[in-house]
Amino acid sequence: MSIDTKAVLAGERLALARLLTQIENQTEDGQRALGELFPHTGNAHLIGVTGAPGTGKSSLVNQLAYHFRNPAAGEPQRVAIVAVDPSSPFTGGAVLGDRIRMTALIGDEGVFIRSMASRGSLGGLAQNTAGVVQAYDAAGYEVIIIETVGAGQSEVDIARLAHTTLVVEAPGLGDDIQAIKAGILEIADILVINKADRPGVENTERALKNMLALAHPVQRVFRHHGQRMEAQAVTDESAPMWVPPIQRTVATDGTGLPEMMEHIAAHREFLQTSGDLERRERARLANELDLRLRATLTENFQAGLKNGAYDEALEAIVKRKLSPQEAVQKLLQSK
Amino acid sequence: MSIDTKAVLAGERLALARLLTQIENQTEDGQRALGELFPHTGNAHLIGVTGAPGTGKSSLVNQLAYHFRNPAAGEPQRVAIVAVDPSSPFTGGAVLGDRIRMTALIGDEGVFIRSMASRGSLGGLAQNTAGVVQAYDAAGYEVIIIETVGAGQSEVDIARLAHTTLVVEAPGLGDDIQAIKAGILEIADILVINKADRPGVENTERALKNMLALAHPVQRVFRHHGQRMEAQAVTDESAPMWVPPIQRTVATDGTGLPEMMEHIAAHREFLQTSGDLERRERARLANELDLRLRATLTENFQAGLKNGAYDEALEAIVKRKLSPQEAVQKLLQSK
Repeated sequence: MSIDTKAVLAGERLALARLLTQIENQTEDGQRALGELFPHTGNAHLIGVTGAPGTGKSSLVNQLAYHFRNPAAGEPQRVAIVAVDPSSPFTGGAVLGDRIRMTALIGDEGVFIRSMASRGSLGGLAQNTAGVVQAYDAAGYEVIIIETVGAGQSEVDIARLAHTTLVVEAPGLGDDIQAIKAGILEIADILVINKADRPGVENTERALKNMLALAHPVQRVFRHHGQRMEAQAVTDESAPMWVPPIQRTVATDGTGLPEMMEHIAAHREFLQTSGDLERRERARLANELDLRLRATLTENFQAGLKNGAYDEALEAIVKRKLSPQEAVQKLLQSK
Repeated sequence: MSIDTKAVLAGERLALARLLTQIENQTEDGQRALGELFPHTGNAHLIGVTGAPGTGKSSLVNQLAYHFRNPAAGEPQRVAIVAVDPSSPFTGGAVLGDRIRMTALIGDEGVFIRSMASRGSLGGLAQNTAGVVQAYDAAGYEVIIIETVGAGQSEVDIARLAHTTLVVEAPGLGDDIQAIKAGILEIADILVINKADRPGVENTERALKNMLALAHPVQRVFRHHGQRMEAQAVTDESAPMWVPPIQRTVATDGTGLPEMMEHIAAHREFLQTSGDLERRERARLANELDLRLRATLTENFQAGLKNGAYDEALEAIVKRKLSPQEAVQKLLQSK
């Protein structure tokens, strides 16, 4: 079925939903439509929300959407959410696809939600998510929230899609958490301690502050001197710096959400004035170009192989007659 | 520095450690050595251990190593562990690299432990882990444990390396856990409920049983009929079937570990008698061939591009003059 890109550009929900299905199924029609829509992208603010299971990310995302729709000041913004599910790479089913969202969002035409499942192909999920984000962007959503679970490589790849990345923690989630924090701290623009009404919130905040101090040396200087210094004084670059704020929230009752919205607005402002937005856009698009290039090269190569050449090479590896390295060379030469 | 593959084959620890560093740094010497060692691989039993943060995987892995070294019956086996860390894709440092392991393992020459960090390249971590496993295998370790954190795509890719995969859960880890279970259940050969002395263990076990029943329809039949039936009766295939057992453990004091070792031995026996071992070996090696093929194709392509062609294409994307799809086609044609 061909895609009505004009209807997508006009913001028609049904046309958008159909396009998203084509993107998820990686059809040629879907890819063609994305190509046509691409000149109309680049306008949305992309917010990534990531964190370990049990931190309450989904509730937080619901609250963010609600506050963008019902702002303290200014115009309501249209919000589209893509929730990337940690579901099976084998069945392709979106486990969280049918989860219950906030009642306040139900029936709001300014909100669009889609869950994405992993399809098992290397980089496939990241590529599909990038496609969904482009479709939302072309359809005129001003804010796009990319919600991912976990802290693995694929989640980080997906976080790279965002302009502003929120890393969500919660008190008392176990002893491995510290290690994960160190990994995803570096992608965090805003740190959120959700479920902040739970015991242990002070410990979590202290741990995050210590890790921030390690990751952002300028903060360490602040601490040593006991007073605020200009970032310029302690870094080589003359560009302004962003030090991730730590915000406590209780997503279930909305505590901390107004402050959260201010942090997001401040980061957006920072991105624009510092030139960081341009740098991130370039990195984001380079990442997408690389993913597509890799996938196309592999497809073209396999399509051009002689019948049975791949199976022969695999058989030789299984029998330990060729190493995988040698098999690759042999396949490359057989062309 | 060239690698002494003879010393690796003789099981010399220092030579092995050096090779692992070359593998992690993806040097040509390291790849050449792996090629030379490959004919000597295929003898080890590969055990994958995966699960969400906070489930106590590392303690469980320590206990497994201890029990392989001090078996209830038979000869001790040499054990090598590769712990894949959820550390930063940006710094490449292994956060858990220096964590404390069980005192009982310290100084035991029959145990080798290495932590691996993500290096940010797509599929790079999975490829490096496969290399480390091959090096261990060639060095004569009889049991190789691959420990990964999380349930993302990259963790699943790594789990594909194993013959026997343990999925570790723990009681009361939060509401997102259910969704993750559904995803990694399908790769589980043995389900472990660690920290089984904690409240909520019955709920966790019930949830796992329900999910198992969905994933393994034959179990559902057992339940409906209230009696054990032959698997053959309800599936099309005449091959014997493996239904993942659920084992409670408390890794910190060793509870459930003897039973765990029996499950592992039983699964190994099943793999050999059912022909599943051959099938898994083939899939594992096909996966490695694919990863290497993809990496080599991309490297060769980029090395062959005209100077500046890639940057020009990216610039056109950033300016929205070309879609990423069109840019890929243009780069392919420019060769």
